[in-house]
Amino acid sequence: MTIKAWGAHAGDQPLQPLDIPRRAPGAHDVRIDIAYCGVCHSDIHQVRSEWAGTLYPCVPGHEIVGRVAAVGAQVTDFRVGDLVGVGCIVDSCRQCADCGEGLENYCDHMVGTYNGPTADAPGHTLGGYSQQIVVHERYVLRIRHPEAQLAAVAPLLCAGITTWSPLRHWQVGPGHTVGVVGIGGLGHMGIKLAHALGAHVVAFTTSESKRAAARALGADEVVVSRNAEEMKAQRRRFDFILNTVAMPHDLDAFLALLKRDGTMALVGAPATPHPSPNVFNLIMKRRAIAGSMIGGIPETQEMLDFCAEHGIVADIELIRADEINAAYERMLKGDVKYRFVIDNASMAG
Amino acid sequence: MTIKAWGAHAGDQPLQPLDIPRRAPGAHDVRIDIAYCGVCHSDIHQVRSEWAGTLYPCVPGHEIVGRVAAVGAQVTDFRVGDLVGVGCIVDSCRQCADCGEGLENYCDHMVGTYNGPTADAPGHTLGGYSQQIVVHERYVLRIRHPEAQLAAVAPLLCAGITTWSPLRHWQVGPGHTVGVVGIGGLGHMGIKLAHALGAHVVAFTTSESKRAAARALGADEVVVSRNAEEMKAQRRRFDFILNTVAMPHDLDAFLALLKRDGTMALVGAPATPHPSPNVFNLIMKRRAIAGSMIGGIPETQEMLDFCAEHGIVADIELIRADEINAAYERMLKGDVKYRFVIDNASMAG
Ligand SMILES: [Zn+2]
Ligand SMILES: [Zn+2]
Ligand SMILES: [Zn+2]
Ligand SMILES: [Zn+2]
Repeated sequence: MTIKAWGAHAGDQPLQPLDIPRRAPGAHDVRIDIAYCGVCHSDIHQVRSEWAGTLYPCVPGHEIVGRVAAVGAQVTDFRVGDLVGVGCIVDSCRQCADCGEGLENYCDHMVGTYNGPTADAPGHTLGGYSQQIVVHERYVLRIRHPEAQLAAVAPLLCAGITTWSPLRHWQVGPGHTVGVVGIGGLGHMGIKLAHALGAHVVAFTTSESKRAAARALGADEVVVSRNAEEMKAQRRRFDFILNTVAMPHDLDAFLALLKRDGTMALVGAPATPHPSPNVFNLIMKRRAIAGSMIGGIPETQEMLDFCAEHGIVADIELIRADEINAAYERMLKGDVKYRFVIDNASMAG
Repeated sequence: MTIKAWGAHAGDQPLQPLDIPRRAPGAHDVRIDIAYCGVCHSDIHQVRSEWAGTLYPCVPGHEIVGRVAAVGAQVTDFRVGDLVGVGCIVDSCRQCADCGEGLENYCDHMVGTYNGPTADAPGHTLGGYSQQIVVHERYVLRIRHPEAQLAAVAPLLCAGITTWSPLRHWQVGPGHTVGVVGIGGLGHMGIKLAHALGAHVVAFTTSESKRAAARALGADEVVVSRNAEEMKAQRRRFDFILNTVAMPHDLDAFLALLKRDGTMALVGAPATPHPSPNVFNLIMKRRAIAGSMIGGIPETQEMLDFCAEHGIVADIELIRADEINAAYERMLKGDVKYRFVIDNASMAG
């Protein structure tokens, strides 16, 4: 089956309409009519070959929501018409300890939603900037939000789970003071989720202009990290800091804000290294710097259900597929509040 | 009261005999006749003013063992003649949350055994390279080892607790694979303690010549970290790595050896930064880099009791006080197995 998609033939070319194949659903597969797909910074890195190993044609997109169009003979949990989502993972080994614990995101054989190895043509996975996708049922999520919110649910599949997973792993909740560094696609979800989990949330931004917006997202306080006096007042206040900034920056400025035994979790990896953190900041209060990568399938479902229950969605700007190249340029300038989402219906005709 | 000690009048001068004052014991004080004092790398840094803020005269030494010579009126737990020890801490606020949890080492008002603030003359604390010391009972440890082992117990008070505290905090025990990086004063204790706690211990050294010695200390395996093939075989094996190396080095080589959710704890801070660690190594397996600093008083007592029960002491070379300057030079070349200990009786006459 051939469907319409948007992607690129090379790292230095703009995205354009493509015709791509999708496999016929196997016994455990779900075929999904994609309604919307969020636009993640990873999409830009991958399609522009800023990371090693991009395969072309490259069709990005791993914040996928839509309706089930068909199911394989063995699929019991999903029916045609169900609202579903697909995130960053479309396959894994299903046999290792990580898969056994529902942490497919740490499986050595995790297959990404785009640019991952597959037996399907053309030999690598093609993502959600497309009309349909066919995915093994294990990696399909149920969406319990009202259909009217569907476009704004899409970013939960990457930006949502990438912030939810560390907040849950480090057991953020009532009584905790939590910092969220960076107020972009990831950070704005981090603020909403940490707030809904009951923590006292302090948002950190480099931009004075984002104060009001961060408060509106649920931050109890906002600190402009370029203001040394403001930063000093935050020393040793934090149980946990979620750092969503992938640009190289001074980690020490935030490590010093952690209490004894506090952890700063990084969810973005910079293209060039951060300045080396000062080991004294770790030793003096038994602090830690950790990393966290997206999340597993069960915790993604948990996050979606939590968001449905609490009425949480992303703040988005809906675009047509033919606006994607312009949207990338705006994202690179930080000019989006806070996630672009493609209306995949715009790919038809 | 004036006693004999060894110390320096300036950072560029050798240590020499000094006469120093000790306060009369207050109601909660214990006066200790020092039998032995271990020689820690921190002693060198401090007395040579390699860290900021050394006050002179400087008398180093925070691995102190000896016998109680006198007790204040309110002291009930110690009697004249008891075998006791004093480590890196001689005072703290006793009121903060850290003190309340017995983690005086993280108290903002922790007073180090030397170069710390005190009302006693000369206004800063003077350490264990001396005949006697007077310490508040809260910071005095009981030693249950046989007296014949007393000299070899001394290094437990810093090298022992500095490695014990992180091993316990990260709950090292049976079923864990634990790496110990560096086989010096700290590392040799880390190997002994991790082994006695029931972990499978892998020692990492840059020196082929230390293989047999590390095995003798209790390492189940020894890896020469300069051997890329050997290091590759260790990937993703470790629950926990205790890194005792304070020289700047490639942290990524060890981070890659951690399993998912593994932590590498640093107990030494380099004078110049380590190369900046690769954030991908943290993110890909939710790993952490943490720090840990000495240990609190209750856990120091726990460690001493554990060591007494398991027959654990440090491997030492006993020296006279007048050999201290030469011992420093040998330490800087790594030429000691594994800790010098001063026989403080050599200060008399
Ligand atoms: Zn993403
Ligand atoms: Zn797996
Ligand atoms: Zn020491
Ligand atoms: Zn205190």
